[in-house]
Amino acid sequence: MPAIVANSLDKTETRRGSRFGAVSLSSQWGPSEIPTTALLTDHYELTMLRAALQAGTANRHSVFELFGRRLPTGRRYGVVCGVGRALRALRAFRFDDESLRFLRDTDVVDAATSDWLADFRFSGDIWGYPEGEVYVPGSPLLIVDSTFAEGVVLETVLLSIYNHDSAIASAASRMTAMAGDRPCIEMGSRRTQELAAVAAARAAYIAGFEATSNLEAGRRYHVPTRGTSAHSFTLLHGDESEAFRAQIAALGEDTTLLVDTYDVMNAVRLGVELTHGRLGAVRLDSGDLGLLATQVRELLDSLGAKQTRIIVTSDLDEWNIAALSGAPVDGYGVGTALVTGSGHPTCGFVYKLVARADSDEPDAPLVSVAKKSIDKVSVGGRKYALRRLDDHGVAELELIGIGAPPSGDHNDRDLLVPLVSKGEVVGEEPLEAARERHLRSRAELPQEALKMSRGEPVIDTAYLDDHGRLDNPYAPRV
Amino acid sequence: MPAIVANSLDKTETRRGSRFGAVSLSSQWGPSEIPTTALLTDHYELTMLRAALQAGTANRHSVFELFGRRLPTGRRYGVVCGVGRALRALRAFRFDDESLRFLRDTDVVDAATSDWLADFRFSGDIWGYPEGEVYVPGSPLLIVDSTFAEGVVLETVLLSIYNHDSAIASAASRMTAMAGDRPCIEMGSRRTQELAAVAAARAAYIAGFEATSNLEAGRRYHVPTRGTSAHSFTLLHGDESEAFRAQIAALGEDTTLLVDTYDVMNAVRLGVELTHGRLGAVRLDSGDLGLLATQVRELLDSLGAKQTRIIVTSDLDEWNIAALSGAPVDGYGVGTALVTGSGHPTCGFVYKLVARADSDEPDAPLVSVAKKSIDKVSVGGRKYALRRLDDHGVAELELIGIGAPPSGDHNDRDLLVPLVSKGEVVGEEPLEAARERHLRSRAELPQEALKMSRGEPVIDTAYLDDHGRLDNPYAPRV
Repeated sequence: MPAIVANSLDKTETRRGSRFGAVSLSSQWGPSEIPTTALLTDHYELTMLRAALQAGTANRHSVFELFGRRLPTGRRYGVVCGVGRALRALRAFRFDDESLRFLRDTDVVDAATSDWLADFRFSGDIWGYPEGEVYVPGSPLLIVDSTFAEGVVLETVLLSIYNHDSAIASAASRMTAMAGDRPCIEMGSRRTQELAAVAAARAAYIAGFEATSNLEAGRRYHVPTRGTSAHSFTLLHGDESEAFRAQIAALGEDTTLLVDTYDVMNAVRLGVELTHGRLGAVRLDSGDLGLLATQVRELLDSLGAKQTRIIVTSDLDEWNIAALSGAPVDGYGVGTALVTGSGHPTCGFVYKLVARADSDEPDAPLVSVAKKSIDKVSVGGRKYALRRLDDHGVAELELIGIGAPPSGDHNDRDLLVPLVSKGEVVGEEPLEAARERHLRSRAELPQEALKMSRGEPVIDTAYLDDHGRLDNPYAPRV
Repeated sequence: MPAIVANSLDKTETRRGSRFGAVSLSSQWGPSEIPTTALLTDHYELTMLRAALQAGTANRHSVFELFGRRLPTGRRYGVVCGVGRALRALRAFRFDDESLRFLRDTDVVDAATSDWLADFRFSGDIWGYPEGEVYVPGSPLLIVDSTFAEGVVLETVLLSIYNHDSAIASAASRMTAMAGDRPCIEMGSRRTQELAAVAAARAAYIAGFEATSNLEAGRRYHVPTRGTSAHSFTLLHGDESEAFRAQIAALGEDTTLLVDTYDVMNAVRLGVELTHGRLGAVRLDSGDLGLLATQVRELLDSLGAKQTRIIVTSDLDEWNIAALSGAPVDGYGVGTALVTGSGHPTCGFVYKLVARADSDEPDAPLVSVAKKSIDKVSVGGRKYALRRLDDHGVAELELIGIGAPPSGDHNDRDLLVPLVSKGEVVGEEPLEAARERHLRSRAELPQEALKMSRGEPVIDTAYLDDHGRLDNPYAPRV
């Protein structure tokens, strides 16, 4: 029987005061059962477990950290995303009979390891940056404090979720920053794997997108969904007039008409005429969008359709959005660039053992560990992380250290919150909370964070050692 | 109740003569139930359906085509992938009660549309390029022949699957071509969304990878899985000797030891000593891989461990693999570059209405339709597609036309096969068949297909019109 363990999980991410009426933490439409996430795991996690169980080292107290060594080239900040999905995946991380049979039959695990996996329930603690928070190189995004065995098996699925969702949210944040008050709609489902698309819609919403085309993201996460018609709908009909009449009859005069199938200006005139000037919006999906928008705006205004909005789509990214800031555009539909992270489809986060006990005794003291490597930096130990703000509330430093955080009258904001406590998930929150957090956190950054030119991380990362010295192992090495 | 309709679907892709013993089209381990795929769909597909149902145009006989206008810049060919997954998704494309309630409650559909969706079963025909086949710009990868309503609702999920899986397979094929006889192992799960990772492992296998790290791809698709240990396993233990002993005790002397945690040469000596010269392999994950491999090979040989293999990993892509062709490397592990399509994470395929009847009569003749657009090319009508080979069996032209294919004594290979016939899925095949097809199809290309420098599509696309004239609308426009 497949594990059915996730029935209550989707219930926690409900938009507060959403268009769906009453505020509720229970979902009206489900969720569907989600199967176990336990095999979304690299083979070697389980062979390491197998070897450690046999060697008697599997239960050593261990601390793993998930972090990024650098931002994508030229980017000035990143956005933490995937926290809620990771917690849901953790709850569904159960090795059911079918999975265990597969693992034994293919000799990935032996009988003892299979027995251990059958009983597996994560029982440790996890702290992390909350969802929507800004991050920079070295930010300890997740700290997993458990045994080696419990921490190592989570590596792959945590990295998959964080690397994908944060890449999308980081790109999306740049787009919504450039769009300013104009809404962005996510419509990239067709350009990414079908379930990555659902996660991408969620990530874009957290980073300030207003809506998505993806219906499953609407059902699962209550992200508002939008859409009216494609060119095929116009081509299905004898002419544009027949198509527009059909759409208006079904969706109302406030609908958005796609006006570039044949002649844009003719289509705009037709749409205004058929709605008696009450047309909701027109969508431009090809051509010189800035020029066209200006011409269409003039035409709409001359026809008295001053409230009809102009929505543009067609391979938009943050630079195109910025370039259209002077054009009379009322909204952006963003597809490919969003779901592919605008050139950076993954964050390159890693998950490293940073500290472990010398023995299997539960109270054995932790020692920092780190690989010696000539081209890969990591900093051992269990960390705190603070964002230091200046007197004007502007972020100026990411302070990371081991042990007790610095005292004094600095304006420091704690970045790590409890996500899992003794195995119990405590960090779930409504999606809207992450969305609001992101806007707050981005607003706190120095203004150059929002420049589209290539730059360095907008705040430095500083490490405090035991003597209080600042050192930055992620600074560019000469 | 969620739709549980896919119980038999995973059973068709079993490796022939695989390591799992008997050849079988039934899976030993599952599958898990997969829920409906019907909401992996853009909002506008259903509003178009709604408007067409109300206008009485929904049942017009229509032909949609899925194709790419161009290859990623510089690429010389692409690989069709996702066919088997798309057919599985089609089977699971059912609007269950929960989905319909969501769609009605949020006013995406009205009651009449909801009723239509509740009864939806695709009843049309689908032809397509079989999985693993090479494609070029304009290749009609899927032809969906049905009513407008039945064809339009499939748009998003078909594009999602094809755009992702073909992007991965296209990158993977370049890597396996550069690797030659040396095996490539897919290990990028952590750098992409957790379920995209499973699809990526499958796509890589079709394009010639030998194995994957992803366990779910092993369970679901029977792709061979591989893995031994990470740096964390070494760091867990007091020293490298303790770690290696633990690994060898659990996994045997034929295991692969990760030797770059501290000093590579010391680790190699240690591994050989602990296995009495019978060590299976060493893995290098940092540093100058070519130089290190040479030094390690010399050391291994000097220690008598001539059969110990050297596996390299660490941000490999097709260029790095090519650059290491002269180094004594026995296998490549590829991660990030594979799952992100090596710079091209999506194919940019589109799904266009190319022909439709003028009326709702089932026998009404089809007319070609196409959007007039200044920057987007599409060619209307229902097509045939042939690959023309020269006297030496080398591909020289992709011939596409409407109507009857050309007769004569040309060496033409038909590229379109039936995938769905009157609603019944007829195109499923074992994964191994796609893998073998890809190797055959790639071997048929002119040699310059495998050059890593930027180039043009390796074979031209030619359109035959009614008068037999060749014309290429995808040729670069001046």
